[in-house]
Order: sequence, then structure tokens, then C-alpha cells
Amino acid sequence: MGWGDLGALGEPSKETPNLDQMAAEGMLFLDFYTASPLCSPSRAALLTGRLPVRNGFYTTNGHARNAYTPQDIVGGIPDSELLLPELLKKAGYTNKIIGKWHLGHRPQFHPLRHGFHEWFGSPNCHFGPYDSRERPNIPVYRDWEMVGRYYEDFKIDLKTGEANLTQLYLQEALDFISKQHASQQPFFLYWAIDATHAPVYASKQFLGTSQRGLYGDAVREIDDSVGKILKHLQQLGIGEKTLVFFTSDNGAALISAPKQGGSNGPFLCGKQTTFEGGMRAPAIAWWPGHIPAGGVSHQLGSVMDLFSTSLSLAGLQPPSDRQIDGIDLLPVMLQGKLIDRPIFYYRGNELMAVRAGLYKAHYWTWSNSWEEHSKGIDFCPGQSVAGVTTHTQEEHTCLPLLFHLGRDPGEKYPLSFSSEEYQRAVEHLSGLAQQHKATLVPGQPQLNVCDPAVMNWSPPGCEKLGKCLKAPESDPQKCSWPH
Amino acid sequence: MGWGDLGALGEPSKETPNLDQMAAEGMLFLDFYTASPLCSPSRAALLTGRLPVRNGFYTTNGHARNAYTPQDIVGGIPDSELLLPELLKKAGYTNKIIGKWHLGHRPQFHPLRHGFHEWFGSPNCHFGPYDSRERPNIPVYRDWEMVGRYYEDFKIDLKTGEANLTQLYLQEALDFISKQHASQQPFFLYWAIDATHAPVYASKQFLGTSQRGLYGDAVREIDDSVGKILKHLQQLGIGEKTLVFFTSDNGAALISAPKQGGSNGPFLCGKQTTFEGGMRAPAIAWWPGHIPAGGVSHQLGSVMDLFSTSLSLAGLQPPSDRQIDGIDLLPVMLQGKLIDRPIFYYRGNELMAVRAGLYKAHYWTWSNSWEEHSKGIDFCPGQSVAGVTTHTQEEHTCLPLLFHLGRDPGEKYPLSFSSEEYQRAVEHLSGLAQQHKATLVPGQPQLNVCDPAVMNWSPPGCEKLGKCLKAPESDPQKCSWPH
Repeated sequence: MGWGDLGALGEPSKETPNLDQMAAEGMLFLDFYTASPLCSPSRAALLTGRLPVRNGFYTTNGHARNAYTPQDIVGGIPDSELLLPELLKKAGYTNKIIGKWHLGHRPQFHPLRHGFHEWFGSPNCHFGPYDSRERPNIPVYRDWEMVGRYYEDFKIDLKTGEANLTQLYLQEALDFISKQHASQQPFFLYWAIDATHAPVYASKQFLGTSQRGLYGDAVREIDDSVGKILKHLQQLGIGEKTLVFFTSDNGAALISAPKQGGSNGPFLCGKQTTFEGGMRAPAIAWWPGHIPAGGVSHQLGSVMDLFSTSLSLAGLQPPSDRQIDGIDLLPVMLQGKLIDRPIFYYRGNELMAVRAGLYKAHYWTWSNSWEEHSKGIDFCPGQSVAGVTTHTQEEHTCLPLLFHLGRDPGEKYPLSFSSEEYQRAVEHLSGLAQQHKATLVPGQPQLNVCDPAVMNWSPPGCEKLGKCLKAPESDPQKCSWPH
Repeated sequence: MGWGDLGALGEPSKETPNLDQMAAEGMLFLDFYTASPLCSPSRAALLTGRLPVRNGFYTTNGHARNAYTPQDIVGGIPDSELLLPELLKKAGYTNKIIGKWHLGHRPQFHPLRHGFHEWFGSPNCHFGPYDSRERPNIPVYRDWEMVGRYYEDFKIDLKTGEANLTQLYLQEALDFISKQHASQQPFFLYWAIDATHAPVYASKQFLGTSQRGLYGDAVREIDDSVGKILKHLQQLGIGEKTLVFFTSDNGAALISAPKQGGSNGPFLCGKQTTFEGGMRAPAIAWWPGHIPAGGVSHQLGSVMDLFSTSLSLAGLQPPSDRQIDGIDLLPVMLQGKLIDRPIFYYRGNELMAVRAGLYKAHYWTWSNSWEEHSKGIDFCPGQSVAGVTTHTQEEHTCLPLLFHLGRDPGEKYPLSFSSEEYQRAVEHLSGLAQQHKATLVPGQPQLNVCDPAVMNWSPPGCEKLGKCLKAPESDPQKCSWPH
């Protein structure tokens, strides 16, 4: 979902009354970022509090390439990484993930091996349907074992766009919350639904209800679901004991627009890019009785902060044996403080841009290659800023492109290299970039090798269901990451 | 000011707390339009309830050209037009205009000849400073006579951007309201400040206070002023007896961005164009105790509706001897009704596009000419949609470009000509266009002739101030309207 998909953030159909209400009752973060312009790395960063380049969710197969965890990926979240649920477990929390995991699907990467107690959802995206020869359909797990596959047992009608997955995930969330409430146990729920990702789907009751078409139907269903979760917490009387945070894992995928793509509001380009449209995300914190209602924050925030903030709430210290990129946002949420910190925009192994305050410096620009663009793959449809939305990888290390995101949120007007303002801001930003690079210890890249043998042929539990498929011979190759 | 300049409509700095609060207490119109992508025609339409092509505020000097009322314009609002204040006067209202009139500056066009009882403001934009040889500075009037000139007696510092004009206009509004309240007389106040128009200015207390630079400072000052006016009405106890409507006369002027230009949010292009960025405007209706708080309307609205709505409020019928394009929005505001009506997008003498429901058909597309564009005049900076944001005037009468503004508010994806959806929607829209054209009686075009002799050389009252200037010989010419 994109920054511009919320009514409270200017989507012209204004069809998210529950999220808008959540913002009115809580705090709206206007300058909040994903950790990557792509899903898997962003989610790995959220759960580890660390940049993908540290936790291994990147590739070195090409320069500045986005990578994720398709079915044939060999890698996944390393055991050496400490995930938020692993730490919360020690403080007595019961942890559940509902929805898309996306941190690797081979046995050693299973979420229940990384701190979660429960899981209902899928290891990969709901792409497909696949033919079970070239590629099996994605399994859906309940805890350790698969309970079926997308398109087979969990229907997604690509023609009508109908699928009741969000309803299943909603019910699972409500049930888990009820159970935890009944047993008086604290909980961490990672409600990682994959709706609004293409192929876009919505339940029958939402189909055709949006002015925005199928994508809008999916947004409305998410909005409705969030409203139901908040209402459930309040009805159980635990609203004031539960911090809820709503955000996204990357900007709206404009490549799927207009039928399956969302809105990044006034920002440049979308998913896959390190322009604002690729990484600025809608973000709302809700904790009635604690976070003042109607708050608005310009704190530069990141999905990685959810790691540090959650630990802080649970009375835990972040691990001291490694670099944590997230910061504790509680002083921001509870006391309205502003913490000075930069945002690093990575694409794969390259630091593309840095933001501090209202300034953002691009050290590299790239949308996608001419070759990909000529195939109709356009991350910036209808937008073109000369020298900025480049189709070749352009280095600007010596003379970065500088934008003032207050005066120019759309990154259309690079500041003059000769201005005093440029000199001052770039000196500061480049200092931050150099410091960051000098101390960076990159993790072992996990997204380099692909092998058809590691696909979801025979996930645990397949025997009971008669859904085991025969894997082909192992044939590890460098994964191809064109973007 | 553009649609995207309000925090409530997704401006990322979210610096309009008073306007956002006004929307929270009233009704936010998301699909509200100016009557022209340029100031004078839009203001003439607001006050007459009629399209510029009917009331004469257009040019036939060229095809599809925007025109306004610069100093050397010979024309202005014809006596045959009935203005809102002329009609309200009959119902006992005292009418005041504060700020920019822009409906002609020669004696016969004076606002006090067209229904207003009082005026404090200027007949033209605050362009300048001028040298009094080629062009005199714009006068500021109090009622019948000038009381000084911009840059001379009413300072605008182009270097620092400082000018206290909005404060003067605010104080004038508060005083007028107080006076009317004291005398128990109903009033119509047309608070037509010209701030946010380039050259952008703000008062000292607002300079440097916005994240968005000088333009943001000006927006903040307007926001603050609106808040003070609403507060004043409530403190006088007449909030529940006063309908307040906030809107703009055209989309944000992107040509002045980033230093002096605003935001049209997710919409295409800006001022001067008939894309959504040129004509969709922020719009808020406020009438506590009558308009339910927190309302949101998708009624297709127009500044011309303020004419009909105001008459309705005053218990008056609109004139029956002429075509009125505005509709009465009271059923929308008070009962949440939706009235089926089209929006006509004109550029000068040409019907460029028509919207009905969520569909918009472009019969002509044009941003500006290659010649103007090569001079750096860009109405769509950073935006380029092939075949849509054209630099030649392209006719699409037989096969209009059709957009679905729900799925595609940014007008980036024309619907396929061969789709059933296209056939159905275009049939409807083209029927509306044909019907409209068939019955249209264009007014005498007022914006064709320019003459340096008619400039503000010696406005009434200049003698007392010693500010009379000698006019040159009359030399009437066709005005040049390149856009």
C-alpha cells in the first residue's frame, strides 16, 4: 500500500474511514519509511531492527538490485539474526504471525524457528496459479505444517478478483487476540496480510464497492479489518494496554496501476525505487490513553523502529552485540519528541540516498534499465524528471542530487550545486553517509542463489494432504535481479 | 492554492490545522471545481453563477486560450450580468469584497457598481513593482477611491517576501463582521485575498515558519486567518447563522514551483490546464449546527454553485431570464444528497473536457505550445503522459480520451477505445457535451482587446494622494494570449 492510499493522506476517494479514525485517535507519522523499496528486505528489517545490508536480505549479483524471496531462493533469514519475537518470548510474550512471512521458506527459515509461537499464512507471495511442474502453488501453513495451497485450497479467482483471504486472516487475528485475552497472556501479533499486492483480490462483500476499482476494494477490506481489530481490542477492554502500529513494506507498485496499483500521493515514482514514492509509507500509531489523540509527527521513522519500540515497551534492551538501526519511538509517541536521525535508502548493496531533516541527497539514481523499460515495466508512469528518474545507473557521489523535501516533496527540483544551501546540506549528509559506510559490516548476502529444487514442492504436512510434489534435480544458479 | 495544499488533503507537511479543523467541523468536498483554470474567469463565474463563456470572461483571439484581466484589458464584467451581491442586496444583505476583484478595473466595472456596498482591495493582481512609465503599480481601493498603490503605499518586499497584506485583509474582515453583528444586519463577505499568488508574500510573523518555504508561509497565514475568522464568528455567537465556504479560483501554479508554487496532490498538471490539477480545488463548507461535522462529499461541485447556494440561503430565486450553471448545494450540505450534474472544463472558447460521475472525456488536450515550453514555461513539471499532456492542440472530438477518475485520478491511463466501458461512458458524456453546445449562447468576449491607455494611471482618488499618472495615447490591440 502506498502513502497516498489513505483518505487521511489525500486519496481523492477517501475510502479509509477506519484508518483515518485510527489516525484521529492516535498519531499519524508523515515521514515514515520502509527499509527497502521491496517486500522481503523490508520485512526482514522490521523483524531484526537492522538494515537489509546487515541482516543479509540483499544481493551482490548485480549493482544496486532489489531482491526478494521467490520460490526458488536458497537463502533466508540467518540463524545469527535475532528477531523481535525471539526477544519478546523471553519477556513472556506469545508471538503470532498471520499472513506473509517472506523471510525464506526452507525448513531452517520457518517462522516458528525464529521466535514465533504460531503461524497462519504463507511463506511467499500469492503469485500464481502455477502448474506444479515448473512451479508449485504457494502453501499456506498453520504453525509447522502446510494446510493447503493458494489457488487449490485457498481460492483466488483471477478473473473476478474474489478471494476471502483477508477475511480468514482477520478472523485468525480476532481469535488470537481473544485467546490471549482469555489466558491473560501478553502477545505480539504480526498481522502481515498480503492483500493489495498484485494479483489483487478482495472478498465478495467488498468487490465493486470502491470508486477505485479492485485495488480500492482491497484497500477497503483492509481498512474495515483494521477497524474490526481495534474495536475488538476495545471491546475486550485491552485497547489501553495494546500498541497498534499500521504501516506498509514498500511504496505502492505503480507498475500494476491503474487496475492493480495504488497511490503514492504527491511523491515521485513507486515500489522498486529509492525515490519517496518507493519508500515513504503510511504509518499510524494507536494506543488510547497513552498516545495523545490527533497527533501528527514529522519524526523520521522506519519500520526498523518497530523492533526497538516494541522491545522498549516490553522492558527489554536491544541486543548490544550488533548494530541496530531502529530507534525507540516511545518518546516521540508519548511525549511528542523529535529525535535527530538519518534515513538510509538502499537498493540491494548500494546506498542510493540519505535523508536528514528535510534534505535528501541522492548518490545514485536509477528507475530501471532501458531494456526493462522497453518491455513496458515502468516504475514512474507519467512521471519523468530529467537527470533524476534515469534509466541508466547514474553515480552522483561527488556531486549528489539534493532535494528539499519540504518545498519539493515530489523530488522534481534538484538544488543548485553552487548554492550555499547545497554546500551546507551536502556536507552534513555526506558526512552521515561516509560515517555509515565506514562502520558498516555487511551480512552474508542471502538473495544470490536460486535453485528450482528448493521450491515449495513438499512442505511439511504435504503427506497428510496428499499434496507432496516431486522436486527436480538441484541446479543452483545466480538469481536474476533485473531491477 | 491547489487541492493538495491542505493537510487534510495530503500535503506532507500538514501545516493547515485550522482548515483541517474547519473540514472536521464541516463538510469536505473532494470533487469540487473552479470554473476555469485561470483566475479572472473563475471569479466572474463564481459571482454570476455562469460559465465564463456565457458571462463574457473569455477570448476569441486564439483557440482555447486562457485570458484574464491584466492592467491593459479594456473589458470587464458586463452590466447585463447579474452578480450575487446585486441579488443579495435586494434581500437586505450588506455586501463587502475584501481583496482581489479581477473583473475589470475601468470605472464601469467597479465592484460598487455591481452590487457590493464596500470594497477594500485591488482591481488586479499584485504584480510588479512597475515603473509608472510602461506600467503603473496596482492601486488599492477603499470603496470608491484608491488609497494607495502596491509596492508604494502597501509594501511587498520581493527580496524577503514580506508583506502584511493578508493581515490587513484579515483585520478588515474581522471589523466588517463585528460591524454587521453590532448592527444586526445580514452580510455577504467575499474574502478574496490574493495571497499564494506569485510573487508570493507573507507577514513577518509567518516568514520562515513553514517546512515548505515562502509558499508554505503564505498558506500558513491564510490558514491562520481562516481560523481567526471562524473563531470570531463563534465568539460573536453567529457561527450557527453563518455559512462559510473555503475554496480556490484555480489549481496551484506549478510554473512557480518549487519556491512560489503549491501542490495539486496526485492530480495531473496545474493552473492553466484542464487536467484535474488545473481545476480541482480544495473546498470546505462550514455551518455549525446545520452542516453535520466531519462530512465528506463526492458531489461534483463548482465555484458557480456558491452563487445558487447563497441565493437559496437568502430565500431568493436565481434569475430566470438566463442560463445559470451553478446548482444549489444546500441539499448536499444539509441532507447529504448527491445531485447528478456534469462538470464542463473550458479553456477560453473551447469545451476541452466533460466529467460526469467518475468519467472524464477530453475533447481537446493541450498543456502549452512548444514555443512557450522551450522558454521554460511548464504547466506539468516532472509529468508527461504520452498523447495527453500534449504541446500541440490535439482534437479528440470523434474519439475522446476517456479517464476513470476513481481508478486513475492522475489521468495517466486513457481507457481503451474498444472497451464496452469506453463506449458506454463516451456515449453519455458526448451526449451531455452536445446538448450543452447546442443550447449555448456565448457572451460577448470581454478579454479580446488591450490598450495601455486603460491601465491604472489615474484611478479615482488619485488627486488627493498626488498619485495621478498621465496615460499614454489610446492604442487598442488584440491582447496576446499564448496559453
